[in-house]
Amino acid sequence: MMPLICEIVAVGTELLLGSIANTDAQDISRGLAEAGIHCYYHTTVGDNPARLREALRIARERADIIITTGGLGPTCDDLTKQTVCEAFGVPLELHPGTWERILTFFRRIGKPVTENNKQQAMVPVGGMVFENEWGTAPGCGFERGGLSVFLLPGPPKECRPMFENCLMPVLRSFSGKTIASRNIQIFGMGESAVEDKLRPLMERSQNPTLAPYAKEGEVTLRVTASAETREEAYALIDPMVKTVKTLLGSVIYGVDAASLEGVVLDLLNRNNVRLAAAESCTGGMVSSRLTGVPGASKRFVGGVVAYAREVKENILGVERAVIDEYGMVSEQVALGMASGVCRVTGAELGLGITGLAGPGGDGSDTPVGTVCLALFDARDGSSHTLTRNFGDERGRIRTMASLTALDMVRRHLTPSRVFLDGGVSSVV
Amino acid sequence: MMPLICEIVAVGTELLLGSIANTDAQDISRGLAEAGIHCYYHTTVGDNPARLREALRIARERADIIITTGGLGPTCDDLTKQTVCEAFGVPLELHPGTWERILTFFRRIGKPVTENNKQQAMVPVGGMVFENEWGTAPGCGFERGGLSVFLLPGPPKECRPMFENCLMPVLRSFSGKTIASRNIQIFGMGESAVEDKLRPLMERSQNPTLAPYAKEGEVTLRVTASAETREEAYALIDPMVKTVKTLLGSVIYGVDAASLEGVVLDLLNRNNVRLAAAESCTGGMVSSRLTGVPGASKRFVGGVVAYAREVKENILGVERAVIDEYGMVSEQVALGMASGVCRVTGAELGLGITGLAGPGGDGSDTPVGTVCLALFDARDGSSHTLTRNFGDERGRIRTMASLTALDMVRRHLTPSRVFLDGGVSSVV
Repeated sequence: MMPLICEIVAVGTELLLGSIANTDAQDISRGLAEAGIHCYYHTTVGDNPARLREALRIARERADIIITTGGLGPTCDDLTKQTVCEAFGVPLELHPGTWERILTFFRRIGKPVTENNKQQAMVPVGGMVFENEWGTAPGCGFERGGLSVFLLPGPPKECRPMFENCLMPVLRSFSGKTIASRNIQIFGMGESAVEDKLRPLMERSQNPTLAPYAKEGEVTLRVTASAETREEAYALIDPMVKTVKTLLGSVIYGVDAASLEGVVLDLLNRNNVRLAAAESCTGGMVSSRLTGVPGASKRFVGGVVAYAREVKENILGVERAVIDEYGMVSEQVALGMASGVCRVTGAELGLGITGLAGPGGDGSDTPVGTVCLALFDARDGSSHTLTRNFGDERGRIRTMASLTALDMVRRHLTPSRVFLDGGVSSVV
Repeated sequence: MMPLICEIVAVGTELLLGSIANTDAQDISRGLAEAGIHCYYHTTVGDNPARLREALRIARERADIIITTGGLGPTCDDLTKQTVCEAFGVPLELHPGTWERILTFFRRIGKPVTENNKQQAMVPVGGMVFENEWGTAPGCGFERGGLSVFLLPGPPKECRPMFENCLMPVLRSFSGKTIASRNIQIFGMGESAVEDKLRPLMERSQNPTLAPYAKEGEVTLRVTASAETREEAYALIDPMVKTVKTLLGSVIYGVDAASLEGVVLDLLNRNNVRLAAAESCTGGMVSSRLTGVPGASKRFVGGVVAYAREVKENILGVERAVIDEYGMVSEQVALGMASGVCRVTGAELGLGITGLAGPGGDGSDTPVGTVCLALFDARDGSSHTLTRNFGDERGRIRTMASLTALDMVRRHLTPSRVFLDGGVSSVV
């Protein structure tokens, strides 16, 4: 069977003015690749019927599937549905379920329904309707002379879930193949170092394939395989995941894990210990990441954002003499913060982070980007400290310091044998 | 003079696979709008000469200017320059300056130069060369039969500065017009409420135009005008900004301000006071936002992430009886946290935030999404408290609670007459 070809047509003047990036095309393209459907062109047009017709004329000559995004809303700019259906000679009809939902919504907020709102409830006769659980305008689709056309809403928060939940099953059934993947998550090794280590493996692997993606201080390796069933695809993937674990070892923090902070909270649960954080240069980022995970309150008690020197001294009890002798950015102060936050919160584990995020220096000879980190374990009084330099960009310094602190907790709570034999642990 | 029309053609298989979003098109589109050049289509193609030729054939029929991005690197995938120059019959020649720069680079890193590297130093005969100070591959441009073609590198870190520094001056000289805009920043009024209030103004305004954009709990109104000079454009914009201020009043927190937290830090500076934050459900987000601003340490002393009840009691000194009587999520506890954090840090202003971010409830009858906030002013012992419900989505609840807390500080430090007369203040 020849692979199917899809073209994505985004509709929205805001895209042509550069107000937003076309992330819908990215989301949909990823799904098409996963479903084994080729995509040769993305096109973006404004809220202009003539130019949309022109884009559709070109797309129908070179694609089996057209997916449009945007222009399904209630305002007069939103002309995608009318224009597409006219172009393909497909009449519209009122969809009672959607119309009822819109009426109920307006009754609830106590506002009158306008003719424009009714437009949202019109759908192609004989086509599919995708109920919009994430917004107002439903998506829809139809088939005409061997060409399949699907219309999705523009806002990424509506487009993405509707694409994944409603359209992806249809696309998978078109291609008859299943593509599955696992993400191996890495912290503490850069993208090029990962590539260097894995190049021979990446070059000889066809199915599954192995591709690295860098994201904010982390690297994700995606292992993707294509097969008749999901089970067969995973049977191809899992031995590759095992090989990668053997090659990379302890820099791997998870496989298909939600996030590094999620892995840390999971380890805290398994070890039945609570964590607190004393943050200076990261200013609450570690706490904010941890508390972003539902249920964090069971294991993360909170902490102190010790931005000013007085806070370090008065709340955390870091000794003035230690600060004077070693400097504000020192492993000694980081450790004083870590043990101090355990003392004042009663947590078993404490993190201390002090550093210079710039742009300016602090008057000492400590270079911008220097961060000292400490992890204190109140159960036995043990500690780890380390010093890193994360460059000269404030945002990156703070992010890298936050991730490094979380990774210290992960390493502290992970039995080392898990990584020495490169095998599968209960966490990784 | 008729406005010029530009088409952006992005080249890169990684875009069609969804590995990255086409942010280059967004950056360039913004610049085109600013230069008064229309953009009717964006097209994306893969690293495939035949399909790139097809995209160029279509683009040259409907545009005066074509800008391509991507495919200028040294690998065999990078075919944009050859394909574009062949398509327009423009021969290439070696650019001695670029070639010398590449040779120097390889001498320095001690690696041999390959034939592929030489390809990067080839430029269109009689065209423009944009030296790449941000990477290796230079950009270039040429003119053929009234059509201008420009080729920029794909990586956003190279594309963006080369576009701004090298191509924007050329585009401005083409159009002879300048487009300027100001962003009016709003917190505390939703996008549809803003539109309702401003609809008559938006409908009758042609130059400047007025367009709202929603972003994570905030709304930005962009006022855009086109004129011969920047000064003339701003002369059209500024009366409109004044009118909007009169209509919307105190929900406007800034005009072209960096962020709400930036405005808050500016107000703390002007008032010569220091702020501390005691955060429960926001778990460090307020602190993290404030410390993201360079120089925050002057006015933000830090705070306490009081996630667990013991932290609220032990560090912040919130009385057990108050928690028992009013519940953990109450204005009384928020106020206890706000005054407590002032006491332990010595800051003049303290924020207290306690709420239920979900997904589950806390066993009491407080609904998920409820957040109580307090601002305490230690200078005179005054305070403000409020209770809000921010819905049922954890991320949104935390973001809205953080922004609302920052906005309480802004309102507290802003003289109210500024907003009552709708006039221009030193801050807004």
